[in-house]
Amino acid sequence: MTAKVPTAGTATVLVASNRGPVSFATAADGSLVLRRGGGGLVSGLRPVARSGATVWVCAAMSDADRHAAAAAPDGHLHRAGHDTGGATVQMLTIEPATFHLAYNTIANSVLWFIHHHLFDTPNQPWFDRPFRREWQAYVTYNEVFANALAAAAAPRAAVVIQDYHLALVPGQLRQLRPDLRIGHFSHTPWAAPSYYRVLPDDVGRELLLGMLAADCVSFLSPRWADAFLLCCEALPRADGVRVDRATATVTAAGHRSRVSVHPLGIDGEALRARGHQADVEARLAGLRDLVGDRKLIVRVDRTELAKNIVRGLAAYRELLRIHPRWHGKVVHLAFAYPSRHDLPEYRDYMAAVRQLADEINEEFAASSWTPLILEVSDDYPRSLAAYRLADVLVVNPLRDGMNLVAKEVPVLSDRGCAIVLSRDAGAVDVLGADALVVNPYDVSATAAAMNAALAMDAGERLARTRRLAAAATAVPPQQWFADQIAELNSNAVDIGW
Amino acid sequence: MTAKVPTAGTATVLVASNRGPVSFATAADGSLVLRRGGGGLVSGLRPVARSGATVWVCAAMSDADRHAAAAAPDGHLHRAGHDTGGATVQMLTIEPATFHLAYNTIANSVLWFIHHHLFDTPNQPWFDRPFRREWQAYVTYNEVFANALAAAAAPRAAVVIQDYHLALVPGQLRQLRPDLRIGHFSHTPWAAPSYYRVLPDDVGRELLLGMLAADCVSFLSPRWADAFLLCCEALPRADGVRVDRATATVTAAGHRSRVSVHPLGIDGEALRARGHQADVEARLAGLRDLVGDRKLIVRVDRTELAKNIVRGLAAYRELLRIHPRWHGKVVHLAFAYPSRHDLPEYRDYMAAVRQLADEINEEFAASSWTPLILEVSDDYPRSLAAYRLADVLVVNPLRDGMNLVAKEVPVLSDRGCAIVLSRDAGAVDVLGADALVVNPYDVSATAAAMNAALAMDAGERLARTRRLAAAATAVPPQQWFADQIAELNSNAVDIGW
Repeated sequence: MTAKVPTAGTATVLVASNRGPVSFATAADGSLVLRRGGGGLVSGLRPVARSGATVWVCAAMSDADRHAAAAAPDGHLHRAGHDTGGATVQMLTIEPATFHLAYNTIANSVLWFIHHHLFDTPNQPWFDRPFRREWQAYVTYNEVFANALAAAAAPRAAVVIQDYHLALVPGQLRQLRPDLRIGHFSHTPWAAPSYYRVLPDDVGRELLLGMLAADCVSFLSPRWADAFLLCCEALPRADGVRVDRATATVTAAGHRSRVSVHPLGIDGEALRARGHQADVEARLAGLRDLVGDRKLIVRVDRTELAKNIVRGLAAYRELLRIHPRWHGKVVHLAFAYPSRHDLPEYRDYMAAVRQLADEINEEFAASSWTPLILEVSDDYPRSLAAYRLADVLVVNPLRDGMNLVAKEVPVLSDRGCAIVLSRDAGAVDVLGADALVVNPYDVSATAAAMNAALAMDAGERLARTRRLAAAATAVPPQQWFADQIAELNSNAVDIGW
Repeated sequence: MTAKVPTAGTATVLVASNRGPVSFATAADGSLVLRRGGGGLVSGLRPVARSGATVWVCAAMSDADRHAAAAAPDGHLHRAGHDTGGATVQMLTIEPATFHLAYNTIANSVLWFIHHHLFDTPNQPWFDRPFRREWQAYVTYNEVFANALAAAAAPRAAVVIQDYHLALVPGQLRQLRPDLRIGHFSHTPWAAPSYYRVLPDDVGRELLLGMLAADCVSFLSPRWADAFLLCCEALPRADGVRVDRATATVTAAGHRSRVSVHPLGIDGEALRARGHQADVEARLAGLRDLVGDRKLIVRVDRTELAKNIVRGLAAYRELLRIHPRWHGKVVHLAFAYPSRHDLPEYRDYMAAVRQLADEINEEFAASSWTPLILEVSDDYPRSLAAYRLADVLVVNPLRDGMNLVAKEVPVLSDRGCAIVLSRDAGAVDVLGADALVVNPYDVSATAAAMNAALAMDAGERLARTRRLAAAATAVPPQQWFADQIAELNSNAVDIGW
């Protein structure tokens, strides 16, 4: 391995992710305003990134981010160091056209779709000449991360690289800094081999070999780890990749990677504290007035194709059609927060959600009863209030790396909440025993599970919720991250590296 | 097993398929006109169904078919015996609404889509209450076949049941007639387990258990047989199904099935005779005038989502964009015969094919050169003429049980023809070594393969074509069918039945 080791940095633990724990907005007066970021990844990493030697490398995602990053230039990479609970955030400025192609086109419109099995295959995807330019942008964008990490890392530092946006970084970074301990963590599912092979052969191969340059390749669920191993087994023989299922290791180019599973859970104490603050209590009072003594079915999702909102609403309609005893006795509160409205598939999907919601109310609403309330504006304290009040939670994704909502609700529920849960959410691994598990394509089965959930005895519901909460908090984010770092260190010893 | 054995019939070999070897049309004067059917299945079975003891059971598919069938009533099943080369055709009259739901909705809009991985998964399929009525129609339609076969079969007769339309028939027939030797043959791919599980759990299970009641469950390619075995392994433990990969057998409900592969090939002699009849020669002269001394790229497909015509045309466009040396030197003749125009997906797809074809001609056509000729009217002798004249054949399906066109062209080619072939067509098993194999989603790779095919040395092309023709005719239909019957007989001995 030819390596040009740059002057080593000082960080001993590095995190790399596309979206960082902070972002910027431009205020009305033109000044930059610092915001905390959102999303499962940030929630997971924030509590542990407190050491002074921790650097979090992320991308500038907006013009405001780029302006903030440019305010602290440092060599060829612009950087803005912002202290967030001890971790230094280094925000990378990437040429906007390159970033757009890498992030929107390759990461979110190709790789996300591949891992969630979302393509309308007769018509999409097309891998044609324009795709090659987009793919090159993805390679470049990954290189910017690899270069920044190589410059910032102390000798033998631990680097944990997050998600499908940065799948090539382990290989690029290994070339620059063979001394580092490198982990890659996927927060998404991993595609089944029969779906992964839709990718152009060289692209599918480069992504796998890029990740296999890490010492540890980790997933949220054993099923995603298994799918990854199967994809590695399907690599051309000429690549000389050897998969050992018994030890869950893969050897590629003389380097051995461990494939492991770290199921991210909830920090119960922090969530309960947040869920009882005044803003949540105020929303809770409002929701109680709205719902009255009716049963409350809740769902909370980004309006994301994989979240399967339309079939979930259709299941509610079938519930009301088949079981008129619930008429006037139940309210379905569906939070569907806007997402990815730059993509026509997502705009069409949002329109389909709205239309079906309207149809359901037209079919069933009475003067004193609105059966379905669709909320599309994001309001985190209101979501937490709904978590506390819900009698039934519906989490029915087609495919989901984990789904943290399914883990948060049992922790916050005031009186117990029955969970209707897709078998294809990673969360089912630990919640399956006490949730009502459904095939997400089966609208009738989902309706039947909603009915069973509504009818569940209060005692059983509470007992299940307690067990669900215990399972959901088994591996809180601090532990989850510490386990990954420990594994990186032990792996280095285990394999004589 | 509780069995009510009806009075045994006299047929010793029975074939069951949705579409039979004959059909009827209504002439202008109202009389019924007999037509020979088309399609790979009919081509495959026709040459061997000549014994007096062979009965072919099929569905009446149209009003004309139903009138013909009704003209020969016999008990509760109407039958029309028509002698076709020795085989008696028994056409079953099924209540039209039931037939429509079973054939168009379940078989062609659900099961075909599942096995070819064709769904726009965020939006389709939905398994809701109407689906349950459609599924019941499929069960009933299969029962009509099972009852007819049970009545017609002699003791210990061999029954070969065709395709995804009739997946429940083996189980239903085994209940009625445990003495029979039952085979099931799939002409389609079999879905990967990750795709098969989209089906409602009970439906996926009933289809598998229905097929497993056969003594032999057969496929066109080892990959489809492997996918079937994997789906069987994924059945719930409670079903007690045991899969033995080493012997390719599956034991379910105490009954053992052999899973085997019979790759249907071409009757070379018959095809060459047909391909040199006067009607073909006349079309060939016309095509020669049209093409002149240009290279000819041909594709011949039904306009079927799985055939991937749009990406194939896009690859031709990319070829012309990247390699201007072919401008004026090549003609692409694309036969896209209408199919399933009752489904909106197919109408939209046909529109997309026409639009892209127009765009290509607008971009490249010159006064003396039309780069693309799209023909949508079905003309079998013209197709055969194109087979003979083609320099390059494009067969790029997303997924295809076999694809007989890829096997027919090398047999008929006058001067050698290079084949661009999808790796996901079953035909690649025997043609892969001498075809140019492509990932069907990769438009650029397909364009590159077209370029290599056009540039291929004439000597190499002819040598490859000869090897392709030998491979394509290795298992002609007569042999293919005889092998299945022999396997049914030997299996009965092997497993002590």
